[in-house]
Amino acid sequence: MSKYNELKRECYEANMQLPQLDLVVYTFGNVSAVDRDAAVFAIKPSGVPYEVLKPEDIVILDYENNVIEGKMRPSSDTRTHSFLYREWPEIGGICHTHSTYAVSWAQAQRDIPIMGTTHADYLTSDIPCAPPMNDELIEGNYEHNTGQQILDCFADKGLDYREVEMVLIGNHGPFTWGKDAGKAVFNSKLLEELGRMACLTLMINPNAPRLKDSLIKKHYERKHGKNAYYGQN
Amino acid sequence: MSKYNELKRECYEANMQLPQLDLVVYTFGNVSAVDRDAAVFAIKPSGVPYEVLKPEDIVILDYENNVIEGKMRPSSDTRTHSFLYREWPEIGGICHTHSTYAVSWAQAQRDIPIMGTTHADYLTSDIPCAPPMNDELIEGNYEHNTGQQILDCFADKGLDYREVEMVLIGNHGPFTWGKDAGKAVFNSKLLEELGRMACLTLMINPNAPRLKDSLIKKHYERKHGKNAYYGQN
Amino acid sequence: MSKYNELKRECYEANMQLPQLDLVVYTFGNVSAVDRDAAVFAIKPSGVPYEVLKPEDIVILDYENNVIEGKMRPSSDTRTHSFLYREWPEIGGICHTHSTYAVSWAQAQRDIPIMGTTHADYLTSDIPCAPPMNDELIEGNYEHNTGQQILDCFADKGLDYREVEMVLIGNHGPFTWGKDAGKAVFNSKLLEELGRMACLTLMINPNAPRLKDSLIKKHYERKHGKNAYYGQN
Amino acid sequence: MSKYNELKRECYEANMQLPQLDLVVYTFGNVSAVDRDAAVFAIKPSGVPYEVLKPEDIVILDYENNVIEGKMRPSSDTRTHSFLYREWPEIGGICHTHSTYAVSWAQAQRDIPIMGTTHADYLTSDIPCAPPMNDELIEGNYEHNTGQQILDCFADKGLDYREVEMVLIGNHGPFTWGKDAGKAVFNSKLLEELGRMACLTLMINPNAPRLKDSLIKKHYERKHGKNAYYGQN
Repeated sequence: MSKYNELKRECYEANMQLPQLDLVVYTFGNVSAVDRDAAVFAIKPSGVPYEVLKPEDIVILDYENNVIEGKMRPSSDTRTHSFLYREWPEIGGICHTHSTYAVSWAQAQRDIPIMGTTHADYLTSDIPCAPPMNDELIEGNYEHNTGQQILDCFADKGLDYREVEMVLIGNHGPFTWGKDAGKAVFNSKLLEELGRMACLTLMINPNAPRLKDSLIKKHYERKHGKNAYYGQN
Repeated sequence: MSKYNELKRECYEANMQLPQLDLVVYTFGNVSAVDRDAAVFAIKPSGVPYEVLKPEDIVILDYENNVIEGKMRPSSDTRTHSFLYREWPEIGGICHTHSTYAVSWAQAQRDIPIMGTTHADYLTSDIPCAPPMNDELIEGNYEHNTGQQILDCFADKGLDYREVEMVLIGNHGPFTWGKDAGKAVFNSKLLEELGRMACLTLMINPNAPRLKDSLIKKHYERKHGKNAYYGQN
Repeated sequence: MSKYNELKRECYEANMQLPQLDLVVYTFGNVSAVDRDAAVFAIKPSGVPYEVLKPEDIVILDYENNVIEGKMRPSSDTRTHSFLYREWPEIGGICHTHSTYAVSWAQAQRDIPIMGTTHADYLTSDIPCAPPMNDELIEGNYEHNTGQQILDCFADKGLDYREVEMVLIGNHGPFTWGKDAGKAVFNSKLLEELGRMACLTLMINPNAPRLKDSLIKKHYERKHGKNAYYGQN
Repeated sequence: MSKYNELKRECYEANMQLPQLDLVVYTFGNVSAVDRDAAVFAIKPSGVPYEVLKPEDIVILDYENNVIEGKMRPSSDTRTHSFLYREWPEIGGICHTHSTYAVSWAQAQRDIPIMGTTHADYLTSDIPCAPPMNDELIEGNYEHNTGQQILDCFADKGLDYREVEMVLIGNHGPFTWGKDAGKAVFNSKLLEELGRMACLTLMINPNAPRLKDSLIKKHYERKHGKNAYYGQN
């Protein structure tokens, strides 16, 4: 019995949420989960449909992308995941999908503006859209450079990955993360809903304003501030 | 056995309708039910997913927000509910969601115009959108002031809460109410559908007119007038 | 045992298709079926939710709206149904819904243009939208006059009810009919899909043209002409 | 027992995926599968609802549209299928639907532009929209000429059917194909999703650019190039 069974199970269950939450069709998505003590992460194998995916199919790799356990080839996006695990020590899971509204904003190459309290309950800024890579980077180590593109975007915009747990890659789609794989999936669903609402808001009123700062602050602190009073903890 | 079991059951069942009616994802909503004789109300606990919610988790409070029964923390929106129960003696239940179209209109900061008989079957005016609060109120007792914002909006527009059982809070989302918790949930679904149809109507014809007064009157009286002939009573 | 049991069963089963086909929420729709030999029709009782509707709840009436059998009050739209049965001897069933896209076009007060072969497979003209009634008619026998409004619209536009089995009532919603209640429901679903596609087509290309006459003719005759070669008969 | 049972089964199962994938309502679609050794193909019978379709209902024809086995009339689109099987020796299955977004782009008479990597993962060009036929062709052997229209469109645009496995027929809808019937259905679902995302992208940003060439090349080669590293083979 593998010592990574629990990690594989977490990764498997998070992946299986994607079709249930209408975030993927076919194999258009992948979730990973990290074990910081063992310095390995678990990720979906490449191109395996969710209907046939089993916990034992999950691949275990180290941060340098060496396969530690598993017979299948890991997700083609693996190097983006490992890059982020190396750079961002406090994340526990990563999710990538091609969900409809998130991809549409990414293709539109626009940040999703913060327009309401549903958004402000979880993050205090627009959802950033990283520009498409330049051609040199595309022709290089593409998935590694996708991670670099995310990092550069957060540096340019002065964002902290512990506060903004999601990004759009221009012309591609969303990556989200969080304290564990389940939270990363939650953030993907949240992003999809925020993208849908922002799209409809602009259809109803093309001049709809961003949320004002006082409301941004209030809603975020209600859930995440020192005196937070949302939830049971 | 608690003497509030029946009230908890009503509140629980109304809450469980929200995911079934596609009005919430995760924990983005809450319903309460009031017992006027006992001067208490029942409300969903904060941040508990619908899949694990049980009738005994429902929290009982008095109108001053003191917990009368229940081990969990009540919804973070509790003070808006209690405010409305205090101010509006004839309502029996309140529902708050972040449903897609209702939130989109709230973010657009627009009243949902009355454009058809589906709308007129239930209310004779536009669905009001209260403006976002000023900064002073936001920094104060926010959820209490949300109730005040609703009251002010109804006063400004000359609306009666017994006739218009729904409101949008600008940049936030919908609150609905009714004679009991089930009716409040019905009104949330109705509001979502009316918001969706109004959005599509304006896409098809940006100059689509409001419904004319004679049709507003006719449809409303068909269901609610002295000589109403809809339904079995 | 009632001699109308078979008619009630046809009416019941057609009604129960509405929620399955996503054409109604709550009680926002009704279907009727006629027995031409007995000169009676069966219709859904008013305001009864589909989840609790039973075949024996269906109400039997004559063409003058006298209840022949049934303990419940018939649909509030009954007089529109009876009007059409009297005027149009070749129809066997009628369906009325408040489905999303059909209502949106009705609220936009626009005919749904024929833009593709999906439409032309079933009818050779735009789907007509009758204008809202004048105030005098609204204040009169409203549901009867709704039927008159449909008749006038077909006369004005030179349409034959045996060829165009659907209409939108401006600011209200769709009525559809056919050789039996099942066909009337089919036409409601078809209308909803055609309305959805036409709305999206105009979003993608606001100048999208109507279908040209040669294609309209070809597709309709493929299914309904003398040398039809669609289906098994 | 028929020697075509396996072919019928493949065709049946591919057809049954259409309603599961929300690509058809009623009978608005058909899938065929070819047996190149036997020089026959299997296709859905015309106008049979998916709920009652059985494997033994599938019709077997030769490339000249002669029925080899089967009691039912084959799909009214059969001559388009046989035309493509004759002209394109490397395809194994064909799918035709009236799915919502694909039809909407076809009615808009626009190619679906390549705007993101979801698209580039599968094809390197816009999804072509063939113009509606001229009147002479429409009045002739219509379904045969639909096949000719597809061929002419691919010739005009310099496309290879082995690389671009989908097309829109202006004012009509999509045809897709692939190495077998299952792949043809996959391509129909992919086309629907790409059409939906492109529509939403243009709503969010009417000036959204096409994907740049370097990204088109990179994503396609990741999945299909000499050094492809997607999937398990």
